[in-house]
Amino acid sequence: GGRASSAMEKEAVAAIARMIGWDTHLGHLCSGGTMANLEALWVAGQLHPGKTVVASTQAHYTHQRIAGVLGLPFETIPCDRAGRIDTAALSRRLAAGGVGTIVATMGTTATGAVDPLDAIVELRSRYDFRIHADAAYGGYFLLVKDLDAQTRRAFDRIAEAASVVIDPHKHGLQPYGCGCVLFRDPSMGRLYSHDSPYTYFTSTEMHLGEISLECSRPGAAAVALWATQRLFPLVCDGEFARGLTNGRAAALELYERLRKDGRFVIGSAPELDIIVWAPRAKRISEASALSQRIFDEAARRHLHLALATLPVHLIDVEDMQRDQDTIFCLRSVLMKPEHRAWVDRIWSILDDATTAAAVKR
Amino acid sequence: GGRASSAMEKEAVAAIARMIGWDTHLGHLCSGGTMANLEALWVAGQLHPGKTVVASTQAHYTHQRIAGVLGLPFETIPCDRAGRIDTAALSRRLAAGGVGTIVATMGTTATGAVDPLDAIVELRSRYDFRIHADAAYGGYFLLVKDLDAQTRRAFDRIAEAASVVIDPHKHGLQPYGCGCVLFRDPSMGRLYSHDSPYTYFTSTEMHLGEISLECSRPGAAAVALWATQRLFPLVCDGEFARGLTNGRAAALELYERLRKDGRFVIGSAPELDIIVWAPRAKRISEASALSQRIFDEAARRHLHLALATLPVHLIDVEDMQRDQDTIFCLRSVLMKPEHRAWVDRIWSILDDATTAAAVKR
Repeated sequence: GGRASSAMEKEAVAAIARMIGWDTHLGHLCSGGTMANLEALWVAGQLHPGKTVVASTQAHYTHQRIAGVLGLPFETIPCDRAGRIDTAALSRRLAAGGVGTIVATMGTTATGAVDPLDAIVELRSRYDFRIHADAAYGGYFLLVKDLDAQTRRAFDRIAEAASVVIDPHKHGLQPYGCGCVLFRDPSMGRLYSHDSPYTYFTSTEMHLGEISLECSRPGAAAVALWATQRLFPLVCDGEFARGLTNGRAAALELYERLRKDGRFVIGSAPELDIIVWAPRAKRISEASALSQRIFDEAARRHLHLALATLPVHLIDVEDMQRDQDTIFCLRSVLMKPEHRAWVDRIWSILDDATTAAAVKR
Repeated sequence: GGRASSAMEKEAVAAIARMIGWDTHLGHLCSGGTMANLEALWVAGQLHPGKTVVASTQAHYTHQRIAGVLGLPFETIPCDRAGRIDTAALSRRLAAGGVGTIVATMGTTATGAVDPLDAIVELRSRYDFRIHADAAYGGYFLLVKDLDAQTRRAFDRIAEAASVVIDPHKHGLQPYGCGCVLFRDPSMGRLYSHDSPYTYFTSTEMHLGEISLECSRPGAAAVALWATQRLFPLVCDGEFARGLTNGRAAALELYERLRKDGRFVIGSAPELDIIVWAPRAKRISEASALSQRIFDEAARRHLHLALATLPVHLIDVEDMQRDQDTIFCLRSVLMKPEHRAWVDRIWSILDDATTAAAVKR
């Protein structure tokens, strides 16, 4: 990027920092959530060298990969039935010692569960650790007013994390290739310091290339994000927040229909805009097979669902025979504002696909 | 990316592998050269854990950064007067032991110098190490026939590197956000293995997400690269190669004018399409200050040069007083085919800017 796009990047990132609740910060755009999380854990590892990074079993798999790349020990903590990190288990792990960083997932990619950041922050009264909030998926839901009380309490503490990752290429209306990492403490910039012999000589102030592990980056991403944020400001009562609210409303509505329909078993009520469910069957293995058939039948009808393998305890499988520890579920992400108006049509196709899949059993 | 863009990515990357001279390979696109080099050094580090990565003092600064991120020891090897890695010094360093990986820069970013890969390959008869060819900048010059003999000999051995990085967003006519990493041995894929619980279930064959440290990536980059390579195939006698040849011809022509003009001192003849030079002065410090003034005067005349700090030994400073170890030079990258036709105009503006800068001294 050039001078203009760098200025726009600084403004756009500052707006995200203000959304988090930070007046000062250090941060920049990067190519995506993996690179953003890599920078956050790289900084965390420099401040707590050799100490363990912990994340929930439902955290994005990139954290384990990244910890491996950085040479940091990594452990997972079990989740509760809603897919949130189990704070009792986390507390026991902290008591055992050696934990440097807790990754709090603010919206898991599989089910949209939000880790109880409020409880994690409270644990700092007893233990010394760094909190990295991976809000790559869910970060913008900060702006939504009518979240569940528990989700709201978690988001309300995000300013107390040491670092936050948000992907504008998810809910931020940007195309792929736009992640964002932010640090609460601007002095983290010292960890990035390096000498580049041939670039940036036209600027005397600290430039973005000095606070990024990536070198030259597309200015276009910054320009697009800046422009989007001018048109759709990151405020609670704006058009942008209404889009997120509508997506969540669509997820809640579809969840209610699934819950009341005897053909399905479901996960917890959606915290954000993702729902997971499975067809009811005698055994888990049969339900898993039927999920695949419903997926295929829906796709033939141009309803493109997703599939997810989840631990059985995340789904209320009731009296189904637990012949497997994981269940192959259907998954839908209602992230477009239009989804709210489409719920009837989605339901109609899903109904039809489910009937067709059952016949083929 | 989706299915179509993944298929296009595989085809586009295979075409780059064939250009290198590989019938089989493992590789993928990524967000840029830093991420591509990170993956290459990450693989190198897994195969030679704890061993030192060496690169020349003119290698891109990202290698030192990346080695630090990966927790690998890193050392630099001096360069000869042309900015290429000094093979005698490299040989001595290998004899001292502990080197796992040599980064051969196939076109430095500062001056376009190409490390003598042929000599580095020969060193493997005596020492056991892995070669990573960082051809992020210069890789496509493989296709240019009339390189200097030494440069040609280096490129002719690139197929013997274990990994190669090429940035299509440099000479490959792509916008930012398109790097490429390739491994000669497809079995390197085993080092990437991971489980993603919720993606890719629609494909049974190995997918690109399984051989990349990044997770979801823009399919648009793959589509654009694939389409570009269909229109401008990666062949020696094609339009694309002619573009590179023209850029190099422009650099050679400008180099000759600078060499014959008593007002300037210059670096070695360009191996690719980059030239560096400085105004002649009594002392190095004066030449450096004058470089900045010429840069400014040229910019006022809409000729946008670059500036680079180089070790004095890379410039033929003749009898200038060496009151500094580094010299602040002017730098120009003639990477557009049109530059060949623009040489007269560039020279005319540079001449004018140099005169104006001298008057202000």
